[in-house]
Amino acid sequence: MYFASDNCGPALPEVLAALSEANTGYMPSYGNDLLMDEVKARIRDLFEAQDAAVYLVATGTAANALALATITQPWQAIFCAPLAHIQCDECHAPEFFTGGAKLRLVGEGDKISPKALSHAISVLGHGNVHVSQHGPLALSQVTEMGHVYSLAELSALTSLAKQHGQITYMDGARFANAVVSLGCTPAEMSWKAGIDVVSFGGTKNGCIGVEAVIFFDPAKAWEFELRRKRGAHLFSKHRFLSAQMLAYLLDDLWHKSATLANAACARLAEGLRDLPDLVFRNDPQANMIFATLPRATHQRLHEAGAVYFMEGALTGHDADEPLPMRLVCDWSVSDAQIDRFISLAGM
Amino acid sequence: MYFASDNCGPALPEVLAALSEANTGYMPSYGNDLLMDEVKARIRDLFEAQDAAVYLVATGTAANALALATITQPWQAIFCAPLAHIQCDECHAPEFFTGGAKLRLVGEGDKISPKALSHAISVLGHGNVHVSQHGPLALSQVTEMGHVYSLAELSALTSLAKQHGQITYMDGARFANAVVSLGCTPAEMSWKAGIDVVSFGGTKNGCIGVEAVIFFDPAKAWEFELRRKRGAHLFSKHRFLSAQMLAYLLDDLWHKSATLANAACARLAEGLRDLPDLVFRNDPQANMIFATLPRATHQRLHEAGAVYFMEGALTGHDADEPLPMRLVCDWSVSDAQIDRFISLAGM
Amino acid sequence: MYFASDNCGPALPEVLAALSEANTGYMPSYGNDLLMDEVKARIRDLFEAQDAAVYLVATGTAANALALATITQPWQAIFCAPLAHIQCDECHAPEFFTGGAKLRLVGEGDKISPKALSHAISVLGHGNVHVSQHGPLALSQVTEMGHVYSLAELSALTSLAKQHGQITYMDGARFANAVVSLGCTPAEMSWKAGIDVVSFGGTKNGCIGVEAVIFFDPAKAWEFELRRKRGAHLFSKHRFLSAQMLAYLLDDLWHKSATLANAACARLAEGLRDLPDLVFRNDPQANMIFATLPRATHQRLHEAGAVYFMEGALTGHDADEPLPMRLVCDWSVSDAQIDRFISLAGM
Amino acid sequence: MYFASDNCGPALPEVLAALSEANTGYMPSYGNDLLMDEVKARIRDLFEAQDAAVYLVATGTAANALALATITQPWQAIFCAPLAHIQCDECHAPEFFTGGAKLRLVGEGDKISPKALSHAISVLGHGNVHVSQHGPLALSQVTEMGHVYSLAELSALTSLAKQHGQITYMDGARFANAVVSLGCTPAEMSWKAGIDVVSFGGTKNGCIGVEAVIFFDPAKAWEFELRRKRGAHLFSKHRFLSAQMLAYLLDDLWHKSATLANAACARLAEGLRDLPDLVFRNDPQANMIFATLPRATHQRLHEAGAVYFMEGALTGHDADEPLPMRLVCDWSVSDAQIDRFISLAGM
Repeated sequence: MYFASDNCGPALPEVLAALSEANTGYMPSYGNDLLMDEVKARIRDLFEAQDAAVYLVATGTAANALALATITQPWQAIFCAPLAHIQCDECHAPEFFTGGAKLRLVGEGDKISPKALSHAISVLGHGNVHVSQHGPLALSQVTEMGHVYSLAELSALTSLAKQHGQITYMDGARFANAVVSLGCTPAEMSWKAGIDVVSFGGTKNGCIGVEAVIFFDPAKAWEFELRRKRGAHLFSKHRFLSAQMLAYLLDDLWHKSATLANAACARLAEGLRDLPDLVFRNDPQANMIFATLPRATHQRLHEAGAVYFMEGALTGHDADEPLPMRLVCDWSVSDAQIDRFISLAGM
Repeated sequence: MYFASDNCGPALPEVLAALSEANTGYMPSYGNDLLMDEVKARIRDLFEAQDAAVYLVATGTAANALALATITQPWQAIFCAPLAHIQCDECHAPEFFTGGAKLRLVGEGDKISPKALSHAISVLGHGNVHVSQHGPLALSQVTEMGHVYSLAELSALTSLAKQHGQITYMDGARFANAVVSLGCTPAEMSWKAGIDVVSFGGTKNGCIGVEAVIFFDPAKAWEFELRRKRGAHLFSKHRFLSAQMLAYLLDDLWHKSATLANAACARLAEGLRDLPDLVFRNDPQANMIFATLPRATHQRLHEAGAVYFMEGALTGHDADEPLPMRLVCDWSVSDAQIDRFISLAGM
Repeated sequence: MYFASDNCGPALPEVLAALSEANTGYMPSYGNDLLMDEVKARIRDLFEAQDAAVYLVATGTAANALALATITQPWQAIFCAPLAHIQCDECHAPEFFTGGAKLRLVGEGDKISPKALSHAISVLGHGNVHVSQHGPLALSQVTEMGHVYSLAELSALTSLAKQHGQITYMDGARFANAVVSLGCTPAEMSWKAGIDVVSFGGTKNGCIGVEAVIFFDPAKAWEFELRRKRGAHLFSKHRFLSAQMLAYLLDDLWHKSATLANAACARLAEGLRDLPDLVFRNDPQANMIFATLPRATHQRLHEAGAVYFMEGALTGHDADEPLPMRLVCDWSVSDAQIDRFISLAGM
Repeated sequence: MYFASDNCGPALPEVLAALSEANTGYMPSYGNDLLMDEVKARIRDLFEAQDAAVYLVATGTAANALALATITQPWQAIFCAPLAHIQCDECHAPEFFTGGAKLRLVGEGDKISPKALSHAISVLGHGNVHVSQHGPLALSQVTEMGHVYSLAELSALTSLAKQHGQITYMDGARFANAVVSLGCTPAEMSWKAGIDVVSFGGTKNGCIGVEAVIFFDPAKAWEFELRRKRGAHLFSKHRFLSAQMLAYLLDDLWHKSATLANAACARLAEGLRDLPDLVFRNDPQANMIFATLPRATHQRLHEAGAVYFMEGALTGHDADEPLPMRLVCDWSVSDAQIDRFISLAGM
């Protein structure tokens, strides 16, 4: 019963097999491998964007930090949600890679509303040399609380951003889960919705460690290459990044894997929904559940070996006190695990 | 006949197998995997350094830049050879990660002499607020021109450095090749020779992408961890770095692989030595050969499919003009390839 | 009727005279002038801190950014009020000089409460490599909204900060105005109240451009000197900074000037208090007034030549709409100006 | 007998007087003073460049670092002479403000030759992601060893630079001395000779602390303003920078002051030329002399109170050993001082 994170789950067998297949003899290094040519072609097809510049890095933070640094000046503010990964979980990587940009926290929580964005833009004082200037808008899709922006919501935000000269970036660490959730195409959820730069995450969705960074306008492609090398993120044996991504793209493996994760999450949510003591903190939309359970239930689950994030002390006087938890499903979670968890939670 | 770089060769089968073995079920992320505990224990044993702080990153540039940034202030100069990788091949990663330190080029070429170091220290003006202050001494072992510092040479340099308060760093991207060349132990070539921080490279020697950074004094361990995360070099699915390094350590695979590479290089050098037109630019000491051959010989080799770095134009009027080349052997090169190359070069 | 800013007022005659007096013949450069020796001795006496390290820079932003960079690591958060000058008015100078630290906004408005500080400390996650680590606590005294922390308030905050390992910094751009307001000594308002590093501002209080940075613990003095030079803030003809500060210190000129400014502000506040249409946004405690007046009154004042900051449009349909304004008094404002302003506002 | 540095001499009386004149009443802050409008107009006239963007900062290092950062990317190399001030005397300010650019040392000594520049350009490897990319060419005029580039030399260098896409910057800390030496106009020595950005130094030539930075192409003007503020170099009471520069421009005071300094240097060189023990290290071209004198002569000069930079130990066995020295003349040095120095040196 493992629901700690999609970072803790195993890699897909197809991805591991691809590493072995790529391990035949000599190959040019530093991104000049032939596999990367195929990765580029397939991603351009998948995103219906033949001019796009496509790069691979090994961590989600590298994708975010390098992409944002390429589109942000050091005196600009990156507009993001207060709970954005770039704000809460990257130990100042965005500030480091941009050379000192600020993160401007827009509204509350994990999801930005047009109203909050409009307000944030209006109060910043762009054009006044003493203050932060407008930098990009950064959206996480899926958000850090498991929400998925609808296509209409994305378009409303990017439209507003563009009116004020903001470039738009999507942190797509869970891009696949969002596409599955919305039932749309990658193009619809990115450039057709006004996104300029996107990361297409592989790591959380079954790869070992690979993320694609996609610039729909390739004007800054060379700058990104220099930033990637300067950031020590250009792999010498790059073929092993290419091979992961290629396996992930072949036969829509990325989509299948996210479909499994989202379905597991739906099954889990469905089962939990009927429990009298469980309260959802929001409506699960992709592969994450945020809810509360009484302390006693947490104790029972922990004793049975369930692994997940919770807030508050497991031991305490009040057995009925509701304590928050996060449950994340990846492709590998089985129905049996889910059903056992539900059963234990409902005892 | 592939002699372009040890970055272009395949990964060792044991390393690939270890990835699959590591892919069973759930595991804590971000370096908290159990495999990493074993990596730490084995590296501490191998280096006879039970207090050492041990970390993994995926690229050699990350190892260099993060290690150096941890021991260098932005107003200090890192003392290195003019041909050092950190100076010539990392697109300012050291400057970026240190926040603007200078690289102080000591002497000529790829290898630092005590005399040149002594001179560089004397002219720097340490203590004067207008100029660079003394930062660490950085040595590449094997050097970028294939030289190997003897243990006595290392001790002479580090002793001099310590007299002036310099911390010492060894870029060990080819650490294993140097150990094999010297017939010494890892401890002898590192802390026993006065090295404070070392990178123990896996990538060039048969891994997919993994380097260990070892601080013999763990005082700055936590700072390194923060720098690694801030630099986007902390892997979520860290078990796959651990697994590579563990396979590399088991049964002295690192030593066997470097022994193969060095032996291949020796065979190649031996065969080339008798050719009348070949001139060695220096004496091969590990797995790299720097030499010149006439243009016509290069043409013949290229036509036959040989792959390696050369300087100058392959086509040209003067068939006899000697053109420099670099030949690098990795573990995978076969005797047949070597012998064919020698045979073609000697025609 | 000039109430725009204490940055817009003239310099004190004594300060200008001191420049001429300092202009006799040769003098060592870069801070080695004899005048600086006297500055150091007098500041140490004034602050009852004989071990303090004392430096001069020319701008308030330089004082803040260099002092904070000396006590903050790039992965730390500086705790400050949302309206702090370092957050709102310095175009990312703190982020630039620290190499990417975050500003952690504590509570609401311009003044930090112990409760808000305690909350901010508790939620940060110090010790978790993914998030901001605890950096210094930065307080502005006078605050940007004209508040003055009492000595008890300062002690409560610094005591809490020290319990969590935070160094404390006071942005004393208006240090003198606060001392006058509290009727205390500089030592009482700084190290005796738990402040570790303070800027002692001269520019806003009648100098041309000079601020002292004082480290009560001199351990980081040399680092500050290197940072000042690297930041291009070490003056070659430093005697002209020393001369300003020396004049400012002689005969308590700093105290007299702030007394004039605060008294002017009190007279202005007193006169405005009786006006039926005026609403104070807070109680004036030093040399700044934040209040609202009806649009029609603003129009009348502007037509008569009054200069001050206001928010909102001067022209508009609603003559009665209350519009916010800020009034700042410096040493040079005359009673006649004040009385005329009051008279116009009350018509 | 003061020849230590033009940084140690007094300010011009006209400059001091201008500060007092500027100290009348209220004035807008942060560069919006009316005096600055006149400074801009006069500099545009003086440089025959009506579109130029003109800014003031208070230190020469700020001028260099901010100007270079505006025209250099962090992965680029700034081409400069090995003895350039930006390389030797600014404690990494260029690296700090650019975010980690390298200084690429061209040729030997203080002055760049077209041949050396051509070589440096050819070996850099521009376009290869692993190495430094071409950044600007930075020339000091007067150089740090007292040389003055001829107009033809400047044009040859800038022409070569532009062929390779390099922007050109002139460190004009002693711009006036060079103009006097060449007998040319400011325009001829800057944009007409291919210079894109220049600093027009006031501090060394009789101001208190002010340098103009001039961009002949104003495209990056706003970026410079943001960098200046972010670097804490925007003065609140900016009128006192404007006033200095205005006085310096009026009646060609800048030219008169440099003429005095250069004439003093010529008189000193002339007198020293006949001494049998004196050896010039190069031919004095502006206001600096580099020469050697026997130890005994240095001792005699020091005993008599002469102040200047020398290398080597004043006390030593060998009275005849030639020891190098630098003599710098500023506007304030008198003929009597000069003649006495010559007389003492010739005893």
